[in-house]
Amino acid sequence: MRAAVFHAAGDIRIDEVADPKIEAPTDAIVRITRTAVCGSDLWLYRGQQPYEPGGRTGHEPMGVVEEVGADVRHVKPGDLVLAPFAISDGTCDLCREGVHTSCRHGGFWAMMTDGAQGQFVRAPLADGTLVPVPERVREDDALLDALFPLTDVMGTGHHAAVCAGVTAGSTAVVIGDGAVGLCGVLAARRLGAERIIAVGHHEDRLAKARAFGATDVVSSHGADVAEEILALTGGAGARHVLECVGSTAAMQQAIQIVRPGGAIGYVGVPHGPAADGLDIMSLFFKNATFRGGPAPVRAYMEALMADVLEGKLDPSPVFDMTVDLDGIPDGYAAMDTRQALKVLVKI
Amino acid sequence: MRAAVFHAAGDIRIDEVADPKIEAPTDAIVRITRTAVCGSDLWLYRGQQPYEPGGRTGHEPMGVVEEVGADVRHVKPGDLVLAPFAISDGTCDLCREGVHTSCRHGGFWAMMTDGAQGQFVRAPLADGTLVPVPERVREDDALLDALFPLTDVMGTGHHAAVCAGVTAGSTAVVIGDGAVGLCGVLAARRLGAERIIAVGHHEDRLAKARAFGATDVVSSHGADVAEEILALTGGAGARHVLECVGSTAAMQQAIQIVRPGGAIGYVGVPHGPAADGLDIMSLFFKNATFRGGPAPVRAYMEALMADVLEGKLDPSPVFDMTVDLDGIPDGYAAMDTRQALKVLVKI
Repeated sequence: MRAAVFHAAGDIRIDEVADPKIEAPTDAIVRITRTAVCGSDLWLYRGQQPYEPGGRTGHEPMGVVEEVGADVRHVKPGDLVLAPFAISDGTCDLCREGVHTSCRHGGFWAMMTDGAQGQFVRAPLADGTLVPVPERVREDDALLDALFPLTDVMGTGHHAAVCAGVTAGSTAVVIGDGAVGLCGVLAARRLGAERIIAVGHHEDRLAKARAFGATDVVSSHGADVAEEILALTGGAGARHVLECVGSTAAMQQAIQIVRPGGAIGYVGVPHGPAADGLDIMSLFFKNATFRGGPAPVRAYMEALMADVLEGKLDPSPVFDMTVDLDGIPDGYAAMDTRQALKVLVKI
Repeated sequence: MRAAVFHAAGDIRIDEVADPKIEAPTDAIVRITRTAVCGSDLWLYRGQQPYEPGGRTGHEPMGVVEEVGADVRHVKPGDLVLAPFAISDGTCDLCREGVHTSCRHGGFWAMMTDGAQGQFVRAPLADGTLVPVPERVREDDALLDALFPLTDVMGTGHHAAVCAGVTAGSTAVVIGDGAVGLCGVLAARRLGAERIIAVGHHEDRLAKARAFGATDVVSSHGADVAEEILALTGGAGARHVLECVGSTAAMQQAIQIVRPGGAIGYVGVPHGPAADGLDIMSLFFKNATFRGGPAPVRAYMEALMADVLEGKLDPSPVFDMTVDLDGIPDGYAAMDTRQALKVLVKI
């Protein structure tokens, strides 16, 4: 089969690779019809994270089940399925507690498989990981586009809103205008926030945030962004802050603008310097809750899918570039230079 | 009047100082009958925190109202009152939200007054800050001893348990066997935790933890404390961790032993190195909640007081040394050398 393969920083190519095979009786093989390039894939592309030359990545597969192992019960060949960015068995104690990303037997796609940027992928723990799309909508391309972001960005934005404790009538600030931040706006609106302040770098993305439900937008190019947000929130800050970047600067900003007693939901993987120099002292004196982590997207899948199927939720506009398998390298380049917000791959 | 005055690191003396006076119509003057030395006072004593020679401290007053300003309505001369370690008006939006430590007009005793280790203290925002003790128990010395820790350590231990989300039937780990950690054990038991694992350095304090309701104790002198606690909690850690120390090591230990999806309640003021090198990455991947701060003791006062008055709660054993005003320097020295857990001052 053909798949995207890393050769060097900035050099990803579509190569012929071995077909994946069933390795365990709980595996399934999925023929990918939609996948994506994630902001976290760019760390590899930019050489910010070590990788093996010849390595593969990708973790947002949607596709058709081709083959299942002997123990797979919940999906069958021919099913259209989608999968969260984390593999989980759905049966261990931690999955039952809703923390599928800490599944005792699961893990991430790039660790347990060859990744999901190719024609096929092996799906471990298929019964837990794969979520079937109802048969009646399998031919509805627009609806499939709307469902597809549930593999990662929509579930992650939702996790930020859940962790920040967004409730009906509340005021939320969303830091970051990337795909996750925009989905965070959708999620905050879905949970009933009445005022949603989106903070970002890009005018066009902030316009999309407005279309998704942001009531105010703040450019992070401003002289004192925190002051501006504090002024918008009565001087004491917002009770719910969705930190959707993962940089030290964004986390510090979240700490500055969270209301005493409020909560920061953080879902940007704390990459590199984010781990250093966090102003824990300010967090402390604000009695703020700091909650987040890799989104247990699987836990949210059914609820969000129900809304998409009813036409109440459509995160598909976060994708602003579509490529085919051969276009994956162009997709990486476009995201790397910020010409694309998020790239959909249709195979 | 006479009060404890810092002369140099390790040198605190009882000196003659000016009597406090009403400065604002919302002030009251309280004749102190009980006060205490706090672990945080030791930072000054040890020279770990800058102070002015001639400076005074102390923030746990109980005593009799002597005089009130023209606007004070809720307390009157002759009332026996106690006060949390933070001054608050009780009427601003943040107080109404239960975050009295972030009161828009309040602050800490040492910042707004000359401190509460003397014969008298000026109590700013008296209506919000001072809590009257019911008249019927004013002569019950044992009950007053039991009520007195509500000024700080009992409310702070309770805050740790609240922030860690302790619920009935749960398993909680309490890191720290100081006065706050021991009160954290009491608080976790009061909130219904069925299993309480206390972690500490001192055999005698851990024995007190057992007496307060700890079902297991773990010596922090062990080879691998985190492993030991993980083994006690099924390998995945405890859902509720009360971090009652404030050091980097204690916070890291809390992160190691918190269950994925669980919560760390932290109330140890992150002092010095605690702000550095926090393993935010592990916190992230566990989807754990990190919540805490200076306890809004005022918010908890009525509920805890009700339990003390009904004889259901008695944190007074955290005090293992009692001195009079002249004994305050001895009290500091005893706490500094860990010969005393916490010092009660009866004036």
